[in-house]
Amino acid sequence: MELYSYFRSSAAFRVRIALALKGLPHDYRAVHLVRNEQADPTYAAVATHRLVPSLVDGGQVLSQSLAIIEYLDETYPQPRLLPADALGRARVRALALDIACEIHPLNNLRVLRYLVKELGASEDAKNAWYRHWVEAGLESVERRLTADGATGLYCHGDTPGLADCVLVPQIFNAQRFDCRLDHVPTVMRVFDACMALPAFQAAQPSACPDAEN
Amino acid sequence: MELYSYFRSSAAFRVRIALALKGLPHDYRAVHLVRNEQADPTYAAVATHRLVPSLVDGGQVLSQSLAIIEYLDETYPQPRLLPADALGRARVRALALDIACEIHPLNNLRVLRYLVKELGASEDAKNAWYRHWVEAGLESVERRLTADGATGLYCHGDTPGLADCVLVPQIFNAQRFDCRLDHVPTVMRVFDACMALPAFQAAQPSACPDAEN
Repeated sequence: MELYSYFRSSAAFRVRIALALKGLPHDYRAVHLVRNEQADPTYAAVATHRLVPSLVDGGQVLSQSLAIIEYLDETYPQPRLLPADALGRARVRALALDIACEIHPLNNLRVLRYLVKELGASEDAKNAWYRHWVEAGLESVERRLTADGATGLYCHGDTPGLADCVLVPQIFNAQRFDCRLDHVPTVMRVFDACMALPAFQAAQPSACPDAEN
Repeated sequence: MELYSYFRSSAAFRVRIALALKGLPHDYRAVHLVRNEQADPTYAAVATHRLVPSLVDGGQVLSQSLAIIEYLDETYPQPRLLPADALGRARVRALALDIACEIHPLNNLRVLRYLVKELGASEDAKNAWYRHWVEAGLESVERRLTADGATGLYCHGDTPGLADCVLVPQIFNAQRFDCRLDHVPTVMRVFDACMALPAFQAAQPSACPDAEN
């Protein structure tokens, strides 16, 4: 298996966690997003969507982090990252999408670049935008986690899964941009529980071969 | 079953298509997004995330359109909206996420409001933002559809499925904002094939009980 990743990409970080939780060996291929290497012809030939991450398994190129993790869970089912019941799966997917659709797309590098270059946003306005979507979005995740008894040590029960793979990278981003986090105590409790696990430690940006300060 | 929807919400539109393809009867509950009814206490009591759509099935509240459609496909499997094989499912999910993560979140009502109110974007700048993400995002979908032989009459093979449920509402939005579409002929061929089906016709905004001009 080959993973095309960038150490700071939170979508790639999600897949790195899933691979680590499942103990799946893979070759790490760095794609430097700040240098726009995702648009290079060599990478574009692998990945038509020109985004990171991509996973190559058995000669097949997979993309979109949530689709990759679902594929891994179906193909390498131990340990399971999605619950066995349909309602549990719906809850876990909804939590993952709360972050993957409502927070992360607004804070992508290319979006921040557009704000500055095309809309003339100042550094302060850009950072306020970033924090606004992270803080409001995580508040929504907090409400969902506290709304029912399915939340356990992790987002869903007492084993880490898909929702945790998506939550943890978002908190790394939030911390990097000094977002407020004291309003989401359950989110942070889950984050701390995840980061106590070797798989999450091994997948974090600073542990990647292409890590920079 | 009860569907909380807004006629113009493309996330709700996705679920309406899935319900129509499966022939699942449901009560339609309108939530007027422009009047901010999603933040009303009555709706917030149903839906902790305060977004549209929500689906209530057997007393359980489901949210996030892609999670709802996956739940429907697992619980009411005929006709299938996801392929039987893991690679096919990964491809269909990636196509759905190409739109649900890379295009749609940037063009949400609340995001457009932020651009205008907080960043002082002009009407022209707002519309240019909208078109930029739609046109670039659909170009990426076009590349994926033309990159392999799995594309058929619809996004994946010759039966409509999850990716089509997500594609069609995005094209409605693109047309409403006068986005360029001549650069994505395969996308538009699939769109036209979908709109020839009664389920897509029945789910479209103008056919909703809360439709406005």
